[in-house]
Amino acid sequence: MPLWRLGIFASLALNLAALALLRHQYMVSYPNHPGVVSPGQQHRACAPQPGTSGAAARAPSTGKPAVTSDSVINLDHGDPTMFEAFWRETGDAAELVIPGWQTMSYFSDVSNVCWFMVPDFDQQVRRLHRTVGNAAVDGYHVLVGTGSTQLLMAALYALSPADAVEPTSVVSTAPYYSWYPAVTDFLRSGLFCWAGDANSFVGDAYIELVCSPNSPDGAIRDAVLGSSGAGKAVHDLAYYWPQYTPITRRADHDIMLFTMSKSTGHAGTRIGWALVKDREVARRMTKFVELNTVSVSKDSQLRAAKVLRAVSDGYDYDGGASASRHRLFDFGRRKMVERWRMLREAAAASGIFSLPEETSGLCNFANETAANNHAFAWLRCDREDVENCAGFLRGHKILTRSGDQFGADPRYVRVSMLDRDDAYDIFIGRLASLK
Amino acid sequence: MPLWRLGIFASLALNLAALALLRHQYMVSYPNHPGVVSPGQQHRACAPQPGTSGAAARAPSTGKPAVTSDSVINLDHGDPTMFEAFWRETGDAAELVIPGWQTMSYFSDVSNVCWFMVPDFDQQVRRLHRTVGNAAVDGYHVLVGTGSTQLLMAALYALSPADAVEPTSVVSTAPYYSWYPAVTDFLRSGLFCWAGDANSFVGDAYIELVCSPNSPDGAIRDAVLGSSGAGKAVHDLAYYWPQYTPITRRADHDIMLFTMSKSTGHAGTRIGWALVKDREVARRMTKFVELNTVSVSKDSQLRAAKVLRAVSDGYDYDGGASASRHRLFDFGRRKMVERWRMLREAAAASGIFSLPEETSGLCNFANETAANNHAFAWLRCDREDVENCAGFLRGHKILTRSGDQFGADPRYVRVSMLDRDDAYDIFIGRLASLK
Repeated sequence: MPLWRLGIFASLALNLAALALLRHQYMVSYPNHPGVVSPGQQHRACAPQPGTSGAAARAPSTGKPAVTSDSVINLDHGDPTMFEAFWRETGDAAELVIPGWQTMSYFSDVSNVCWFMVPDFDQQVRRLHRTVGNAAVDGYHVLVGTGSTQLLMAALYALSPADAVEPTSVVSTAPYYSWYPAVTDFLRSGLFCWAGDANSFVGDAYIELVCSPNSPDGAIRDAVLGSSGAGKAVHDLAYYWPQYTPITRRADHDIMLFTMSKSTGHAGTRIGWALVKDREVARRMTKFVELNTVSVSKDSQLRAAKVLRAVSDGYDYDGGASASRHRLFDFGRRKMVERWRMLREAAAASGIFSLPEETSGLCNFANETAANNHAFAWLRCDREDVENCAGFLRGHKILTRSGDQFGADPRYVRVSMLDRDDAYDIFIGRLASLK
Repeated sequence: MPLWRLGIFASLALNLAALALLRHQYMVSYPNHPGVVSPGQQHRACAPQPGTSGAAARAPSTGKPAVTSDSVINLDHGDPTMFEAFWRETGDAAELVIPGWQTMSYFSDVSNVCWFMVPDFDQQVRRLHRTVGNAAVDGYHVLVGTGSTQLLMAALYALSPADAVEPTSVVSTAPYYSWYPAVTDFLRSGLFCWAGDANSFVGDAYIELVCSPNSPDGAIRDAVLGSSGAGKAVHDLAYYWPQYTPITRRADHDIMLFTMSKSTGHAGTRIGWALVKDREVARRMTKFVELNTVSVSKDSQLRAAKVLRAVSDGYDYDGGASASRHRLFDFGRRKMVERWRMLREAAAASGIFSLPEETSGLCNFANETAANNHAFAWLRCDREDVENCAGFLRGHKILTRSGDQFGADPRYVRVSMLDRDDAYDIFIGRLASLK
């Protein structure tokens, strides 16, 4: 064989070997690519459910069957799966790799009040708030919790005097988040107890929970009682992000709560954070988390840090290549604008539903006027013969949360606006057809 | 150009392109390979602490400074960093990769009582118990919690009648785990309250907490009151694993609690599980977790499933290559045998300390006689002038937990046996020198 023929043969053989290697690496790196199912894949994602194997490809993270036009559409919880489409586009920017030997210790930073908080999580929280401008971080302690629900309980624990004879009253303006009374009272604590609507509260010692934008109705809220003497306020700012509402000011309350669930859509990660001014309050809140769950998953903290970093990176202008950046709040706002438009059209087509008036404001983050496009619709059924809107919708296979769970009229329901496109589209179609 | 020259040229160009692609993929897939330091790498591990950069290389997961011969040695918590050495050896067997879009939903398996539990975690828990033979799983519900502490509270909630006028009494035989009274009483619940030593309890309605092997003293325990009528038992089997104690029987109690912290050493992952016979109890325990933290980190559940899988794989004999397997319990037992030998020698050299008698039994798992080598030493200072052993040891820069926190004599202390080798060695050296 002449040398040049041997050269071509060898070169072709190398090419074939390289292609085979590349294909193998592609399958390992991207196991969820359609048609490529590796044994390891099931251990990364939730394994498919018995009897729902057809659904697993579409809903790998929920164990819920994929929706069809006949499905029950569950919009009771604010399950933020709408954001999956965004994170699928970001490649490995938010991918987390944890070797087997990492995150084993309870401790993360023994010099911090919140000794179990991973330092990078603290830094990424502060960086994101500085980027968005929705909350002050200088002079604040950052605390991490197993979702913001745990931090809400931590705040109740920290603000209730341990030596009080009577439990401290916990109040919020109606309609209030249905979880507040449930979380406050389920252990029948002697430290705090639910006392209902803040507007009808009489007394000096209280903890006022202020959710703004408010769940369920999206209203922008201020404290009605505020902090004074023995009265304290806790601000739940879960929805104070540019995809939902214009960022009109840098919030600087004593205790502010945030959560991954509604900011980035990572509900299953169970990470929330608190910004706390007072060191003693921060210490007592940390003590609550210790007694409740010892500390907070370090795996999820690392993941949250990675995700928050990817969000900030999307807005970290360095003068180049900005067009190809993935920008969470832009994605979120586009989706919410479109969904609210669809919802208002469907309500108009139906004729039996009403929605809160659209409001807007100048968003300092986007530097333009933006509407409130809340994560939930506070939908009222106006038909005279329907006294229970949730029951009426359930009859049409739409699950929502009844107004009476929010201290309001059961003619109202709260509807999640954050489900996947397929489920949302079916909901809209059904709603428009109801007369 | 002749065709064959073009062929060689094209083939070489393809080879070069393939090599470049392979190199890129290698760096993305294996960013922790020595010499390849990507900016993302530091965000995966805990970032080094300010002022402890020299320590970061040795203690990347704790934020604690590396120990020296002058250090304060903290053996108060049972921080299980001893196991890091094992997991460093296992390569990628327990490495977790989570793409940015995964684990976003709250839900994992809507058909399960514990709807937020990742199915693979459930399967790996059952598989490991079958492998080890330490607990029955058939006919049991598996529940996942944010550590076993959350599941302990969940059990108290589930077993306390919601309509009782008086809170249910929670008891445990002294010396009992110091966390039991703290966790039971910190919210001053109207549902349950701490009532002290089970041996002195009088009454019908109670919840007895049975820790076996017991923290602090390693004793093998049975319930002294047991389940009868309005009395219920919860078995905390955190230490019922072959590295600590012979597996003498397959436990089959109504409620059994386990935790990653002490079984595999992954404390920072905050994953515990319960095996529960009764469906209604399982439902109420799940409800507690919902109200407390909505669900449990899915990232950590996936990680725990991966880790438990690696442990079982180590003992899954397929007839070949077994010598190269990584076997957690073999590692753990070797370490514990060695550490207990060192501790008994140090106590003898000192002359002022005593330890529980060594006991042993036939381990069904190892199929040989094995000693109890508990995760904690229950150390008594016999010097007449020392009434507070924890204070005495603190004076010698050894932090332990005082006996009075366990309802016992402060001449005793509980000492963690699970810290890293360097810290343990310094502790042993100091202890032997005390007269």
